[in-house]
Amino acid sequence: MYLIVTYDVGEKRVARVLKVCRKYLNWVQNSVLEGEITIAKFEKLKLELERSIDKSEDSVRIYILKNKSFFDLKTLGNEKGTVDIIY
Amino acid sequence: MYLIVTYDVGEKRVARVLKVCRKYLNWVQNSVLEGEITIAKFEKLKLELERSIDKSEDSVRIYILKNKSFFDLKTLGNEKGTVDIIY
Repeated sequence: MYLIVTYDVGEKRVARVLKVCRKYLNWVQNSVLEGEITIAKFEKLKLELERSIDKSEDSVRIYILKNKSFFDLKTLGNEKGTVDIIY
Repeated sequence: MYLIVTYDVGEKRVARVLKVCRKYLNWVQNSVLEGEITIAKFEKLKLELERSIDKSEDSVRIYILKNKSFFDLKTLGNEKGTVDIIY
């Protein structure tokens, strides 16, 4: 499956949430990561994210697509992160 | 078609970019909007966004899906904006 993850989390938790997401996905824009992932790893990602956020304050959206062919991508302006580079 | 738009733009341009996007899409999370859109309106949205951003600094990602059935959505924590409410 292919995931697009967006998050809006409190300042104190941003670094941790980014660290968790970058274990599984590619950073493409501030607060946005994408990538192919197995079901097993997806379950682990969800669990780690749930432990990292404050559910009353933070918001995480996980868009789940069958694969990358299920969407086209149009970028405007400065493409901050390409899908292949993980840094 | 169904769009998921994420953006990372300079402080001075955020309000304008949000205003442009909200004419066509629903706000669902900070810097993330979604919604059904016609091809004609999509062309207008792109044009207005291109005029609103600083291409050297700002980044906009437009995920284009055939329709809403092409993805599932899992949210964690506080679901800041539901797709129907525009405010």
